[in-house]
Amino acid sequence: MSLVLDPAAQDLLFREARTANTFTDEPVTDEQVQAIYDLVKYGPTAFNQTPLRITLVRSAEARERLLPHMAEGNRAKTAAAPLVAILAADNEFHEELPALFPAFPQAKDLFFAERPARESAAALNAALQAAYFVVGVRAAGLAAGPMTGFDFEGVRKEFLDDDHTPLMIVNIGRPGPDAWYPRSPRLAYEDVVTTV
Amino acid sequence: MSLVLDPAAQDLLFREARTANTFTDEPVTDEQVQAIYDLVKYGPTAFNQTPLRITLVRSAEARERLLPHMAEGNRAKTAAAPLVAILAADNEFHEELPALFPAFPQAKDLFFAERPARESAAALNAALQAAYFVVGVRAAGLAAGPMTGFDFEGVRKEFLDDDHTPLMIVNIGRPGPDAWYPRSPRLAYEDVVTTV
Repeated sequence: MSLVLDPAAQDLLFREARTANTFTDEPVTDEQVQAIYDLVKYGPTAFNQTPLRITLVRSAEARERLLPHMAEGNRAKTAAAPLVAILAADNEFHEELPALFPAFPQAKDLFFAERPARESAAALNAALQAAYFVVGVRAAGLAAGPMTGFDFEGVRKEFLDDDHTPLMIVNIGRPGPDAWYPRSPRLAYEDVVTTV
Repeated sequence: MSLVLDPAAQDLLFREARTANTFTDEPVTDEQVQAIYDLVKYGPTAFNQTPLRITLVRSAEARERLLPHMAEGNRAKTAAAPLVAILAADNEFHEELPALFPAFPQAKDLFFAERPARESAAALNAALQAAYFVVGVRAAGLAAGPMTGFDFEGVRKEFLDDDHTPLMIVNIGRPGPDAWYPRSPRLAYEDVVTTV
């Protein structure tokens, strides 16, 4: 075996974990979300900028405000999921940077003085963190249903502000009946990896 | 415990894993890279588009071509790492989409007929896969050193083509002496997570 990660953990996080489209009614608690965050917050980002911000849609009122912004094919499952999380990038992450990366506090002004530089860094690094978050949801024994099929500008206006860019919305819970499609094929190693 | 993932696996992937700046001489084999890929290829992407492409820089000649494109602070460690991987997004991923997402083959023409739509989807989804790859490197008991400090256009011209956008470059190996800075602080749950 070339991997040292326990095979059961490989299954839990990657091999058996699937994107769920249906969920049971079992609630997802704040304690679970906090445990997920407290694990995946250690995932690496450039200059430790950690620009990911998470909005948990818990109230029925907020859920009703979210649904019209979802693509039609995502609406029913987003209505039914025990918990829905809006993942966004904070384009003003640089304000925290001197505290987050004390080894090089000059990074804030040297690299991130301009908003476009912040937006592109935040988009990449928040996406890395979004992937860590999906892995973390699975580490909690839950299924994630990440979606990019929604009106980004609508969600931004409804739940965020001009300094935050939505990345994806994730349904979270225990998988229900017929929770997923058959596993789609993956590209072969030879089609993805080139050696020079 | 709110997580079901084994605590040793939590440590391996997140809590004790660190971004390495020095490495031992122990080689990273193709078998290890293949095992990493064969695990993390299952990480979810939108429409299973899996746009990540990986270039392994193995030859001394290719390493020499890469180094001038690295930011000065990244050059020495990139010269010394046992293996260097260039991670890129394939902006023409849609060609594979009918095979990769047989549940909805129309997605190719419906959503990805235009290059700008493909580029933004590929940037996000390849970034998710880059994060899964870093987790996979750690699952192999290796340390990753992901970097965005390089000349993106220079690396694209030197190693890729107009259809591929570099995302990050990752040094891979076993950590050497003084491999990392002290762990930088992370944002508190309350500073990242909002409930509505």
